[in-house]
Amino acid sequence: MDELITLDYGSGGKKTSRLISGEILPRFSNSALGELGDGAVLPGAAELVFSTDSFVVDPLFFPGGDIGKLAVCGTVNDIAMCGGEAKYLSLSLIIEEGLPRETLGRVLDSVKRAADAAGVIVATGDTKVVERAHGDGLYINTAGIGFLRHPGLSPRNMREGDVVILSGTAGDHGAAVMLARGGLLEAGDAVRSDCAALCALAEALLCSGAEVRCLRDPTRGGVATTLCEFAESSGLGIELRESEIPVRPAVRAACALLGLDALYCANEGKMLAVVSAETADRALEAMRATETGKDSAVIGRVSGADGRVVLRTESGGGRILQKLAGAQLPRIC
Amino acid sequence: MDELITLDYGSGGKKTSRLISGEILPRFSNSALGELGDGAVLPGAAELVFSTDSFVVDPLFFPGGDIGKLAVCGTVNDIAMCGGEAKYLSLSLIIEEGLPRETLGRVLDSVKRAADAAGVIVATGDTKVVERAHGDGLYINTAGIGFLRHPGLSPRNMREGDVVILSGTAGDHGAAVMLARGGLLEAGDAVRSDCAALCALAEALLCSGAEVRCLRDPTRGGVATTLCEFAESSGLGIELRESEIPVRPAVRAACALLGLDALYCANEGKMLAVVSAETADRALEAMRATETGKDSAVIGRVSGADGRVVLRTESGGGRILQKLAGAQLPRIC
Repeated sequence: MDELITLDYGSGGKKTSRLISGEILPRFSNSALGELGDGAVLPGAAELVFSTDSFVVDPLFFPGGDIGKLAVCGTVNDIAMCGGEAKYLSLSLIIEEGLPRETLGRVLDSVKRAADAAGVIVATGDTKVVERAHGDGLYINTAGIGFLRHPGLSPRNMREGDVVILSGTAGDHGAAVMLARGGLLEAGDAVRSDCAALCALAEALLCSGAEVRCLRDPTRGGVATTLCEFAESSGLGIELRESEIPVRPAVRAACALLGLDALYCANEGKMLAVVSAETADRALEAMRATETGKDSAVIGRVSGADGRVVLRTESGGGRILQKLAGAQLPRIC
Repeated sequence: MDELITLDYGSGGKKTSRLISGEILPRFSNSALGELGDGAVLPGAAELVFSTDSFVVDPLFFPGGDIGKLAVCGTVNDIAMCGGEAKYLSLSLIIEEGLPRETLGRVLDSVKRAADAAGVIVATGDTKVVERAHGDGLYINTAGIGFLRHPGLSPRNMREGDVVILSGTAGDHGAAVMLARGGLLEAGDAVRSDCAALCALAEALLCSGAEVRCLRDPTRGGVATTLCEFAESSGLGIELRESEIPVRPAVRAACALLGLDALYCANEGKMLAVVSAETADRALEAMRATETGKDSAVIGRVSGADGRVVLRTESGGGRILQKLAGAQLPRIC
């Protein structure tokens, strides 16, 4: 195989076969994918969870992750937030001609590692190549199928008095990608993406006996935007205490440097959960017992029916949070 | 909403909401999608068919179709070729900033029409926007879930003496896109893409009582490449008769003009079926009774175990067909 991916590799002919058999199948070998049919036949279940995301993150590699890990975790997490157990992934690549094969290989290795860690198989896929300056190295789409294990999660279940739990520090992914893009960050620096699969965390919480109203991973738009969506769906307000929201000092400093707000920075390994006040301790205990949830904290409470998210600042003021307006950070995932 | 899609619309914030609620939800309204969760919860089945494709066709609109129709038919067809009944689609957009909203709207209308016609719902989706010169107007990924209705289709079931049926003329899509790209073709011209959903055709054949070994839609790489894949999987040879392969005169002329071979040109609404010789008439009758299969014809036979595809030319010679080498036609779908 050539070192650079050329348009020929997207032709559907010999070179495409070589790309698939040389770079893709060896990594993801499983009986469904090995059929190389147009789709995969899979054991099913009564209720499915189906999700998709395209990933266009720039740069492809950043401290704490890369586009491959992100593409797996993003879709697995979307399924977990719906109460589903992710089972199957599709993997579709849009490659810009000239992408070094070594780069593609590193990304695919990362996809494989992340899929294994999350317990999903890549069951079907597709590969396209576009001309130079019609892409940006590599875009990845994943779609995922999960089986519904915990039905009924919805922000519409929220009630006044419920508590809002965040599974760890806010804004790590967004800050890390922004610094990496600016060339400000070297691998090993203190600001790293939190990119991680949340299936074990969600499962631990949902099996803890806590009354869970809804879950969501605050990716693009960050914690603030996700809570605004919760408030909008439920018609209830949410009151946050700034002092209770964990943010790493290095992320705080990076945000100050870049003019960002950590509450609007994307997370890729964090979960927001709304649970009843009575079962909040049980929920926290279950979440903190997992690797990705060990820094879980109550960050706010559901208030009266005004559909507003209010941040009580450390200085005692109140600030109404709105959904992210415009692009704080394009191509973050 | 602005007339041009800017990076802000991919931010995950307010403008993304506006794009989704203004352009996407009104078109695809259904209860699963309307939840606006991270994924869709769907009634399932015991055995699933799962498929994905990214579409990067250039130009976005061409005689006989557009990227939206293609994105639906491509994935629906992949599922149908596996013996599945397509049920749910995901729809993921990678938009280049500057895409006119009107263009996006036309494509989404086309997606909706094609989805309705094929009996699938768009159950979940995603939207990203990339900077100018990092995309080419619009790329679309669809993934599809179908329920397996006809298990066991595989080229490995092929036997010597089986017949190969093509559901209509070869090469229409590839020729049409190539002419449209060169600006040589006006709408209404004789060369049009065959882009169409094949679910009714596949179902008619699979319910006809014919012994069907395998199905595939010959897209990138065309009829020749797909038959090479069949030969490779089965270890058997295939003998084609050039005079029996239907090609529209206008496509033949266009291929001569462009230096293309219709057998290697992509089709987006054709099916190749291998069936037993004894049930070939029954298969042909069932296929010809459908709209997309009315020009179905036997184009060849499965021969001895040499894994070769040989074309018997009209002048009496024999030409060994190989998989497409290189990019005859990049970005055809």
